Amino acid sequence: MSGLFITIEGTDGSGKTTQLGLLKEYLENKGFSVVCAREPGGTVISEKIRNIIIDKEYKKMNAKTEALLYAASRAQLVSEVIVPTLKKGDIVICDRFIDSSIVYQGDARKLGFENISSINFFATDGIEPDITFFLKLDPEQSIERKKKQEELDRIESENLYFHKKVFYGYISLAEKFSERIKTIDAFADIYTIHRNIVEHIENLLLQKSF
Amino acid sequence: MSGLFITIEGTDGSGKTTQLGLLKEYLENKGFSVVCAREPGGTVISEKIRNIIIDKEYKKMNAKTEALLYAASRAQLVSEVIVPTLKKGDIVICDRFIDSSIVYQGDARKLGFENISSINFFATDGIEPDITFFLKLDPEQSIERKKKQEELDRIESENLYFHKKVFYGYISLAEKFSERIKTIDAFADIYTIHRNIVEHIENLLLQKSF
Repeated sequence: MSGLFITIEGTDGSGKTTQLGLLKEYLENKGFSVVCAREPGGTVISEKIRNIIIDKEYKKMNAKTEALLYAASRAQLVSEVIVPTLKKGDIVICDRFIDSSIVYQGDARKLGFENISSINFFATDGIEPDITFFLKLDPEQSIERKKKQEELDRIESENLYFHKKVFYGYISLAEKFSERIKTIDAFADIYTIHRNIVEHIENLLLQKSF
Repeated sequence: MSGLFITIEGTDGSGKTTQLGLLKEYLENKGFSVVCAREPGGTVISEKIRNIIIDKEYKKMNAKTEALLYAASRAQLVSEVIVPTLKKGDIVICDRFIDSSIVYQGDARKLGFENISSINFFATDGIEPDITFFLKLDPEQSIERKKKQEELDRIESENLYFHKKVFYGYISLAEKFSERIKTIDAFADIYTIHRNIVEHIENLLLQKSF
């Protein structure tokens, strides 16, 4: 596949959506075709699955059900959007991908790295992002920021201890896959963060002669 | 777990629901507490997942998405209904379980036995039925019967070739797990089928001193 697959990760409220928008604009201004998606979601079927995952009514949802629903939503997004876009040679930017499942379900819900990797390898046929940005922002700050923006969903409503486990999960994942995952200080102002991301992207475009 | 876990399998229209009802009545008349469930479904969350799986609008659904949705629905049913019921020492009768995923997604959708077994082992913590009845009825007859009863859903609407792959999948699975899976001639009349099922159940109750 000749395209470029970029993912943005971080705790809720770390600024992923804003940075995705800025990066899309930047790449389109350079003449690239860019398709953006959010997870869970990004296709008609995946958005239906998203509605079940985030519904605050479903407090009884088992952690394994949750993990399998994320993987199901992802399988549809990969087959319907990500693979066809990359095959065309275009760019995909995804707001969350497998790394989110590793830290939310694997670490914070304690289902483990191996289990989550295995069901997601099945879901995605092993596709991996070319580069991932982890927007590192202390969960105390990020969840406060999110609260001001909108009503929190089922996952966002988890307590601070949960979000801290997610946060430290990301830090350890970024160490484990330091080649792919670039840690970005998300406490900086929006345009500084954007410039940091663009610097990595420029290097990657050169490396891949894209 | 001290209860008894019974599953009923077969192609659509093979008479599973009728036999489930008769078996429930029979066991309740003997003084047992019986909980019945259908798959996909059986809990509030699982029924929501079912609605996505069977919706005829979703013709674009990827086979892996489908397999993961069945596993998600099953994970919830196991944790919320099956395990608590068996722990109480009661009986669960389930209209379809993992065997359905093995033959529908593993065989007919070609995802393979190993993949489907693996995601379902994760979903169910490896729980297995004590006994499974495969209602063996030629798919030409069973799907015709189903058509007369109601409008077919997305899975039932698959062509005859698909339902034949499911049927032969069941036959080979029943050979592989001949200790657990009892093949019942479902071309017989309803009460003959019921008597055949009850005979196996009586033996099992004796064996387990239940």
